[in-house]
Amino acid sequence: MEKLTLVKIGGNIIDKAEKLDTFLSKFAQISGHKVLVHGGGKLATSLSKKLGVPPKMTQGRRITDQSSLEIVTMVYAGLINKSIVAKLQSFQCNALGLTGADANSINAIKRPVRDIDFGFVGDIHSNSINGKALNSFICASFVPVFAAITHDGKGQLLNTNADTLASALSIALSKNYEVSLVYCFEKKGVLQSPEDDHSVIPVLNIQEFNNLLDDNIVSDGMIPKLQNAFQALEKGVHKIIIGDAEDLPKLEKENFGTTLIK
Amino acid sequence: MEKLTLVKIGGNIIDKAEKLDTFLSKFAQISGHKVLVHGGGKLATSLSKKLGVPPKMTQGRRITDQSSLEIVTMVYAGLINKSIVAKLQSFQCNALGLTGADANSINAIKRPVRDIDFGFVGDIHSNSINGKALNSFICASFVPVFAAITHDGKGQLLNTNADTLASALSIALSKNYEVSLVYCFEKKGVLQSPEDDHSVIPVLNIQEFNNLLDDNIVSDGMIPKLQNAFQALEKGVHKIIIGDAEDLPKLEKENFGTTLIK
Repeated sequence: MEKLTLVKIGGNIIDKAEKLDTFLSKFAQISGHKVLVHGGGKLATSLSKKLGVPPKMTQGRRITDQSSLEIVTMVYAGLINKSIVAKLQSFQCNALGLTGADANSINAIKRPVRDIDFGFVGDIHSNSINGKALNSFICASFVPVFAAITHDGKGQLLNTNADTLASALSIALSKNYEVSLVYCFEKKGVLQSPEDDHSVIPVLNIQEFNNLLDDNIVSDGMIPKLQNAFQALEKGVHKIIIGDAEDLPKLEKENFGTTLIK
Repeated sequence: MEKLTLVKIGGNIIDKAEKLDTFLSKFAQISGHKVLVHGGGKLATSLSKKLGVPPKMTQGRRITDQSSLEIVTMVYAGLINKSIVAKLQSFQCNALGLTGADANSINAIKRPVRDIDFGFVGDIHSNSINGKALNSFICASFVPVFAAITHDGKGQLLNTNADTLASALSIALSKNYEVSLVYCFEKKGVLQSPEDDHSVIPVLNIQEFNNLLDDNIVSDGMIPKLQNAFQALEKGVHKIIIGDAEDLPKLEKENFGTTLIK
């Protein structure tokens, strides 16, 4: 099986032009097939404020109403996605910007209304991914760059969690490739002591993760990310790394950050 | 040679949701290979106003400064492009939204500063088009949907005239396909009497066009569109039609609007 590296970057990198450029130059140098998934960052929030569209919350959860959807589509699929694609092209990386609507690559389901109506939010799983379309891009040596926007196949765009999107893509691509999934974030890895940036846990299995949960060591924001990641491992993803974008060049020589194992 | 239809739509269709939907359902029904190029419409202008970014003009010409470029990238490549793609997908048309940066499909040159510095505006010609990338999409039965944003290959996005983009794409695609280029606009075709909507000129050659120019019959906005179109005919495009989007279903049975001939 050929190798494929899927990297997910979040807002902390996207918000700083210099940091993003450095990351993209490193991403461009990864050999073999690769895919990038990006989140949104603070740009969407600041545009909402400028436009006087207040974030809509219900029971402490963010709601994607029509105005919010338009804003994230403009910012994620427009400005951020195309800026990343143009920059990668300048590094001779043949990037192709995509949302799930493009080439019908990711078909999501609008989140059903139970206690809360989340609005235009799309839920996905590994069956949501159109492997045929993705393979045709990857075989043609394009580098798909996904903004976390999907569609329902009936004409409706949907806002989708970028971590979930990265994991669903990785699982689907594992049918044809040996996939390494790298979640880049602002820490060096999963920390044993949240206050000590040097306490990175180099390897973590599901049992050890559950122990960390019992001891309340994992931060709230990390829990869904790690749960998602362990699910992806179970479903065929070869390797998962959670670490600092700056360490990306180490990927092909050694592991970095925290490597998750079954 | 296989046939390919390239349709360019402008703001008058994009600004009206119902009109756009009707157009897209008709576009989706065109048989064979097809490509869509869209302009921007009033959305970018209204977003600029809301954000307090006044249109920057020099000697009566619009300038694309950094803020304007960000706005058109958000609106054209983000909101409009992805809304069109999602809608076409709902009509079983396998749309793939693109800017010139994606797959390095259109490499433009930032307009040189002579009398006026137009800012981030990209000029293109038929050699700017990456035929290989486009063919790989078309052969895989994707329907490219272009927003009129290009790049310089050095990481800079550039705002590009959508009519010029449609004509450059048509010329480049004519190497491999028998291309019909359709400019959709708000009139039934080129009019003999500008006040009489029924005075459509069914067929127009370059000599007759020059006569119309001499007689001041062609409106200012139409002149560059027609000049562009006649150039495309000279450079190998099979057929060019200028007409009303509503008449698009007539395309495969008869001509409509004004057909340009050499």
